[in-house]
Amino acid sequence: MKVYQSADIVAMDQRFRTTFINSLSGFKSLQMVATINKNGSTNIALFNSIFHICANPPLLGMVVRPDGTEHETFKNIFETGFYTLNNVKEGFYKEAHQTSARYIAGESEFKQCGFKEHFENDFIAPFVAEASIKLGMQLREIIPVAINGCRIVIAEIVKIIIEDDLIAKDGYVNQTKAETITVAGLDAYFNTQLINRLAYAKPEKQAEPINVI
Amino acid sequence: MKVYQSADIVAMDQRFRTTFINSLSGFKSLQMVATINKNGSTNIALFNSIFHICANPPLLGMVVRPDGTEHETFKNIFETGFYTLNNVKEGFYKEAHQTSARYIAGESEFKQCGFKEHFENDFIAPFVAEASIKLGMQLREIIPVAINGCRIVIAEIVKIIIEDDLIAKDGYVNQTKAETITVAGLDAYFNTQLINRLAYAKPEKQAEPINVI
Repeated sequence: MKVYQSADIVAMDQRFRTTFINSLSGFKSLQMVATINKNGSTNIALFNSIFHICANPPLLGMVVRPDGTEHETFKNIFETGFYTLNNVKEGFYKEAHQTSARYIAGESEFKQCGFKEHFENDFIAPFVAEASIKLGMQLREIIPVAINGCRIVIAEIVKIIIEDDLIAKDGYVNQTKAETITVAGLDAYFNTQLINRLAYAKPEKQAEPINVI
Repeated sequence: MKVYQSADIVAMDQRFRTTFINSLSGFKSLQMVATINKNGSTNIALFNSIFHICANPPLLGMVVRPDGTEHETFKNIFETGFYTLNNVKEGFYKEAHQTSARYIAGESEFKQCGFKEHFENDFIAPFVAEASIKLGMQLREIIPVAINGCRIVIAEIVKIIIEDDLIAKDGYVNQTKAETITVAGLDAYFNTQLINRLAYAKPEKQAEPINVI
């Protein structure tokens, strides 16, 4: 096996390094982040840096760069305090990828990429109608990362729109049935196949598989 | 589709909610985090909250709860300033899951779960020999999350141990060839199948697939 040191990483061509580092840490949570501004213009941006923070209260984090294509998303979240997370299904992954193009401000990715807005009465941010798992998020904390100037947005799941047959008896959400895909790097999309669920690990024995209902 | 509100989430049985919220946001990066303390005792903990922060400098973040099974990992990272991330292959996912059991302090998961330590001369933390992608991490920032008391650990990738044939010409790391698996929730392990890589999205046209070499 080859060993790359810091100096080797620094010496890499910039585009090569971007692709390399982005695809190094494995598969990631892929979500369409949908927002609205105070004038009613909607926006979708594709994020792969969503991570679990807590189950109670139900908190998720994501990394936002306040520049470039994510600027609109950050501005809208900051302005309204709300956004939605919408899973990407294999049937529309190309359209989801297309939301990452740099459209002119005011051109909604909903219209440009062919997605339908879904609004719930008491919730300001739009959901993506086509998604099979839709999460309504309320902003709780914005944490600046000193080392590179990006921000970590932490929000609480305050609304969940989902078919009941995706939820197993023990609360497990069947992402396979939801047709959720995953991403590696910036541009490689994958579907998945369950190997097994394993029971809670205990020191004295190997965990047994759990049946997925 | 059913809509769950905050009150419904609060009212859920605690174990149900933990499983439900953990598996709601889709597939995640799964890594074995390996550390060492100042007395030379090693440790492995399984993490699914690894996220990309930056390609240059190459930074990854992860969420750590300074209590329970992750206490040892956090203490060792804080003490030494270094840790490693090691991908999980399908061939040893049961052993990787087993590292999440609560072993007595001082009982190394390397020995208890059947993994081999791999040391590089100039790097204090152990790598997991069996992993096909091994990342040496240097601690850069610890960010406390006010809302629930967990911590976000941000570290720089300072060493990468990988076979060259896993890296495509443009820098893309082939996770399928690396046999990397992914996880949904706390206990559901998945292998993956590439749908496509898509070219950089531009407003005027749909992105074309890229060949993976």
